[in-house]
Amino acid sequence: MSLSMYQASVPPAIQTLRALKAILGKAQAHCDARQIDPNAFLQSRLFPDMFPLTRQVQIACDMVKGAAARLAGAEVPAWADTETTFAELQARISKTLDWLATVPAASIDGREDADITFPVGRDKTRTMKGEAYLKHWALPNLFFHVTTAYALLRHNGVDLGKADYLMGEQAGA
Amino acid sequence: MSLSMYQASVPPAIQTLRALKAILGKAQAHCDARQIDPNAFLQSRLFPDMFPLTRQVQIACDMVKGAAARLAGAEVPAWADTETTFAELQARISKTLDWLATVPAASIDGREDADITFPVGRDKTRTMKGEAYLKHWALPNLFFHVTTAYALLRHNGVDLGKADYLMGEQAGA
Repeated sequence: MSLSMYQASVPPAIQTLRALKAILGKAQAHCDARQIDPNAFLQSRLFPDMFPLTRQVQIACDMVKGAAARLAGAEVPAWADTETTFAELQARISKTLDWLATVPAASIDGREDADITFPVGRDKTRTMKGEAYLKHWALPNLFFHVTTAYALLRHNGVDLGKADYLMGEQAGA
Repeated sequence: MSLSMYQASVPPAIQTLRALKAILGKAQAHCDARQIDPNAFLQSRLFPDMFPLTRQVQIACDMVKGAAARLAGAEVPAWADTETTFAELQARISKTLDWLATVPAASIDGREDADITFPVGRDKTRTMKGEAYLKHWALPNLFFHVTTAYALLRHNGVDLGKADYLMGEQAGA
């Protein structure tokens, strides 16, 4: 027995993006309840040269579509980064999940040894084998950006707990 | 082809703990260069009811030893949480890595459907199948605490980049 590449990648991505979507919903509710301008969160950063919340969410989505497309040997969909509200960020997550549902498991399974070439920074690329790319790049990156989004909201006072990150919409169950 | 449970769990844990150890080394160097009391970092939090940096590092180690031991069907080693310096936290990471090296791959492989029972909060437990526990609990938790440690240090001005998180001691390569 063992894990297929699809099972090792797509279900954790789905759970984590759903959790992020629910977290953003709590942040919007926090703003609504206190009449806070959502931009106070959306543009917040933990340090001046870190990305703001909006960009963290966009990158989390891009990590999922980039990894799934590359592992599947398909073209990575290019989406404009135009979101300016919590609702629009949630819609980007939904769009990512909807797109992910169109990726056949069979296109990702068996790609452990495929060469995966991906952008690193602005003008470089790196190539890793599929299994290493998934374990050492794609998943750590996804969790990094979702945790950073969570940390930004926590730092700014939104009432969240780790269950929101781990379990998403199941958190209340 | 597919990933074994050991390959899906232990190599990412090793890489991530090594990265965390290197990140703590950079934080210590930052303190040394600026004559900053390391406790200003070690006790820092992103919000009053979040854990401080020291605890984030301890938990990251505990997530690795807890997950590896439970997946291997072995007893989880109990370690006191006594670290008060960057060097002691780095030693705890080394101790975790040394212990991890004693866990046979064969004891984790094939445990996808084993019932894994683990503590949740102070007085509850939860049971998940081995594969779900790894993908939806152990790895997301590990990355959560390492990213939070990174975020705490970044927020407080330590010169780190995502390469430090992703690649550890290879970051300069």
